[in-house]
Amino acid sequence: MALIVQKFGGSSVANAERVMNVASIVADTYNAGNSVVVVVSAQGDTTDDLLDKANEINPKHSKRELDMLLSAGEQISIALLAMALEKLGCPVISLLGWQAGFNTNKNYTTARIKKIDTERVSSELDNKKIVVVAGFQGINKYDDITTLGRGGSDTSAVALAAALHADKCQIFTDVEGVYTTDPRKVPNAKKLQEITYDEMLELATLGAQVLNNRSVEMAKKYHVELEVLSSLKRVPGTIVKEATTLEKMLIRGVTKDSHVARVSVIALPDTPGIAFKLFSKLAAKNINVDIILQSVGRDGTKDITFTVDKDNAEHAKSAVLEAFPNMTDENFVIDSDIAKISVVGAGMETHPGTASQMFEALFEAGINIQMISTSEIKISVLVDAKDADKAVHAVHNEFFSED
Amino acid sequence: MALIVQKFGGSSVANAERVMNVASIVADTYNAGNSVVVVVSAQGDTTDDLLDKANEINPKHSKRELDMLLSAGEQISIALLAMALEKLGCPVISLLGWQAGFNTNKNYTTARIKKIDTERVSSELDNKKIVVVAGFQGINKYDDITTLGRGGSDTSAVALAAALHADKCQIFTDVEGVYTTDPRKVPNAKKLQEITYDEMLELATLGAQVLNNRSVEMAKKYHVELEVLSSLKRVPGTIVKEATTLEKMLIRGVTKDSHVARVSVIALPDTPGIAFKLFSKLAAKNINVDIILQSVGRDGTKDITFTVDKDNAEHAKSAVLEAFPNMTDENFVIDSDIAKISVVGAGMETHPGTASQMFEALFEAGINIQMISTSEIKISVLVDAKDADKAVHAVHNEFFSED
Repeated sequence: MALIVQKFGGSSVANAERVMNVASIVADTYNAGNSVVVVVSAQGDTTDDLLDKANEINPKHSKRELDMLLSAGEQISIALLAMALEKLGCPVISLLGWQAGFNTNKNYTTARIKKIDTERVSSELDNKKIVVVAGFQGINKYDDITTLGRGGSDTSAVALAAALHADKCQIFTDVEGVYTTDPRKVPNAKKLQEITYDEMLELATLGAQVLNNRSVEMAKKYHVELEVLSSLKRVPGTIVKEATTLEKMLIRGVTKDSHVARVSVIALPDTPGIAFKLFSKLAAKNINVDIILQSVGRDGTKDITFTVDKDNAEHAKSAVLEAFPNMTDENFVIDSDIAKISVVGAGMETHPGTASQMFEALFEAGINIQMISTSEIKISVLVDAKDADKAVHAVHNEFFSED
Repeated sequence: MALIVQKFGGSSVANAERVMNVASIVADTYNAGNSVVVVVSAQGDTTDDLLDKANEINPKHSKRELDMLLSAGEQISIALLAMALEKLGCPVISLLGWQAGFNTNKNYTTARIKKIDTERVSSELDNKKIVVVAGFQGINKYDDITTLGRGGSDTSAVALAAALHADKCQIFTDVEGVYTTDPRKVPNAKKLQEITYDEMLELATLGAQVLNNRSVEMAKKYHVELEVLSSLKRVPGTIVKEATTLEKMLIRGVTKDSHVARVSVIALPDTPGIAFKLFSKLAAKNINVDIILQSVGRDGTKDITFTVDKDNAEHAKSAVLEAFPNMTDENFVIDSDIAKISVVGAGMETHPGTASQMFEALFEAGINIQMISTSEIKISVLVDAKDADKAVHAVHNEFFSED
């Protein structure tokens, strides 16, 4: 009855047994009377193996040839999955990115989808075929193969679901859905039945690593209902959709991001335009800044503290030194031994007590808060790395232990 | 100056070191001022590995999906070779079969090239790029990927050379050229400088295994000058071209084919149309017959003996039984313990003594000849399998020892 797009990642099709497992999920969906489009990534380590081959020959290979190389990975998995579905007696056809109409801009390795010509996919669906599409790849105006970058298969699936006006886009992963916090670390973590796009975006950014951000943004933009669920265990997952149809929960989840560093720039001149000068320089160097805090320093100066990805801490320092050539090492304090703990939930918009409840939980656990940042649906605090797991437990217990 | 198509097989690009070796050959050709198109097969065992994956999942996979799967192999090797050429500072671009304009008929796994649209390749050559093309593959009218079957990359190279009106098509292999007989078995085997298309065709059919037959036929049809040479040792190879420009050598080579069986059908009725009935049945079953011999039998019957590929001997018997339902096992003698020894040379057309010279050599070596077959440029004899190598030596010595 429905048109469903199902996406399976590399680990879900890592070997023959897993491919057959995926085929049986797809076949069941098809045999229940649905039209099914399947988007698949390259098998397990294929992409890494191909990268190794490339780097062995020439680490400075062009991006065009890298895309030519890597896109062979999905080609292999779509053919194998189609063969598995043939074995189960299903009419099926596999299509490469270009055959499925994925037109991208010209950027190799980080291409953006411009348009999907759904003609071929639609006509195969009309012929009652299951259509298996290579994720992660498309074609540019030169008729050259492009790839969409990390997590690109999620984006392929959501974009195709949007273009086909599919009823649902199911993203199969190795977890059962989106949890209130990392279930491997916190035993009483709970699986969420539903979550809004915005909450999911905050969770994805904060390191929940279930769904690629671009794909969630796209799902939001085109109103594609997502479901995150397990390819190994057949239980309902987590639905990601518009807030309007969801009951607003106070808190959806608690996340930890340890890959963060705090950079303090001390004794900047207290004149207008200083912050602009500093952060525009960082932006020009493509360094993403997360939390920003400005305070008044001594003797008519000010201090600016911000957080960046751990890998970017030294780059950020160099960039600031370029902007302010008079500064020296004395003006910097960099701390990589920290973690960012966040709570996310659309409900807190209308619930002013959430922040204080979080801070109280941390205080009772004896954890010092270094920095605070809030958005309409998120509260993040910076703590010592050694306190991170304790902080997650404390905050999670605060919001989820009672039910 | 010249436009040269170079083809490298799977073993020539089996690993990073081999890929770099191929790149250096290509770069030298390019740096000498030539326009270069390179046709490459899948790396080493890639095709077999992919076949294993397919068979593990579903041995009864469709041919369409098999072509989708296998064509990923050349995709990997063209990208890697392009990266290797980038490392050597050469402007280069890799193209898949469909990007290079290979249009085939619709038959998966055994497609025939219908047309090559050379627009893209020509424009890349005009831009002074080395063009690396995936061999073995094309695209059919459904926009689906097809493959050309065994030895398909040779065919790709020759067809592209013909379409581009290339000056030469060089086929790089792991041997140094075409020899008068198997150099691994006969130490004084000699490399031929030149050979005609027809001679090469006879040698290929007879098991010399240097060049795929279809590619030689195509080279002959479109007057593409071929050169067979080594990718590992930089020495001149063997030129394959029109007879008109070659000195006609009496004998070009001596070959052995052990994969043959003799089927004798005894006591057939001696009435008109019997041979037609028998061989049309074999043709209908797609069984290729090589040598045919008919003799008068006893009591108004006749015997027909023919040779087929060893694998087809029992199929041939079944086919004959279908044509003549009254026959029994008594009417058949099948001998698989035989070998076919052939001498090939365009010169023998005008040299009637060749056959007797060959028979004399075999007689002096004490080898019994079971059957004889001759064409304008070939003489084949059937001998016991145990005598095969001795026969090759004796015949080769007869024609090549003196010089």
